Amino acid sequence: MERHHFEEELQALKQRLLHMGALVEDRVHQAIEALMERRLDLADKVASSDKEVNDLQIEIDDRALKLLALQNPMATDLRLITAAMKINADLERIGDQAVNVAQNVTKILRHPPLQPVINLSRMAQITEDMTRDVLDAFVRKDITLARAVLERDDEVDQLKDHVFRVLLTYMMADPGTIERALALILISRNLERIADHATNIAEDVIFLVEAKDVRHHHETEEARK
Amino acid sequence: MERHHFEEELQALKQRLLHMGALVEDRVHQAIEALMERRLDLADKVASSDKEVNDLQIEIDDRALKLLALQNPMATDLRLITAAMKINADLERIGDQAVNVAQNVTKILRHPPLQPVINLSRMAQITEDMTRDVLDAFVRKDITLARAVLERDDEVDQLKDHVFRVLLTYMMADPGTIERALALILISRNLERIADHATNIAEDVIFLVEAKDVRHHHETEEARK
Repeated sequence: MERHHFEEELQALKQRLLHMGALVEDRVHQAIEALMERRLDLADKVASSDKEVNDLQIEIDDRALKLLALQNPMATDLRLITAAMKINADLERIGDQAVNVAQNVTKILRHPPLQPVINLSRMAQITEDMTRDVLDAFVRKDITLARAVLERDDEVDQLKDHVFRVLLTYMMADPGTIERALALILISRNLERIADHATNIAEDVIFLVEAKDVRHHHETEEARK
Repeated sequence: MERHHFEEELQALKQRLLHMGALVEDRVHQAIEALMERRLDLADKVASSDKEVNDLQIEIDDRALKLLALQNPMATDLRLITAAMKINADLERIGDQAVNVAQNVTKILRHPPLQPVINLSRMAQITEDMTRDVLDAFVRKDITLARAVLERDDEVDQLKDHVFRVLLTYMMADPGTIERALALILISRNLERIADHATNIAEDVIFLVEAKDVRHHHETEEARK
């Protein structure tokens, strides 16, 4: 393959990955809106349609493999292609988690609303922001934004623990709330996982731009405290 | 790099990946033993030590990237290297889930035992078997074993739903069980995720041996039923 053609194919890979990102971001947004606005129609829509994301994941992986196979890529291109494969996998998993949120929302909507859990709304907002920001960071090669995404992951974990304790209290005080509270706890875990995948992508963006592996360093610092 | 040296490095990559697999399998085994035998010492051990797995993940990724960069690999080698990167990521996540199981076990052990949930033991056994078998399938390039792992994933999902219903009943009947039952529900989710990652690895093994992408096909069949 000529260099010129290789460049074109590399751009196409990037474009398809951005399309995948936009699709997945949209699904996260809809799943969260379904939760907040108690919209069963939206929840059903997100819960029932992951074919497009799945097909796109396979297409992107194929493109990346072909690029790796056809030309001995330069270090920068190699980093882009392998980062694309990893980001692709994380996006697909974010899509799966949006489906799980939507499925849990359909369970909640069978019952009257519980007292709102402020920190769950906050978690949902941060998670959605992280998903959007990390894609922006990838497009703009914006290390500062990628790092900001990394930093918000701890806040999500703290909110998750708080949401858990609040919902546990509801359940213990009134067993009639158990099913709804449980579904909300599971949703908070789904959101946590979306935030984790956004964090993985942020690490890939930093690796891509700085050629530096930041995985687990953060965790090690945490463990030392 | 000479072909001979390339072959040696490729073998080294495979050996390190198998070492990672053995480590992670061991952690899953210990986390499950901690749950079944109510062993706080084992739970604490698994919950506090993921550094070795994390370091190994980075090392394996580096090795794979270097191999991709240094020689324009043949199609078979390329499949092995990219499969190694994916399997590496799934193994690391299985390790994370073993940590989560262990953390949830430490919560349970603060309370007297609940009535045993037969299907949770069954889930744990199948999940552990899937983890072991998929690594064997990778070593022996055994497609039949890899397919058997794929097939067991549905059973794990069904058991998870059953475990959820049983524990929900316990909680509703006796709010004093809520904390323990919740921790067991979360453990069943951790086990489900381990089974999912084993399934991903099984798909990579099939792709590696047959050069065929089986992702999502199974899901599509399910959706059609």
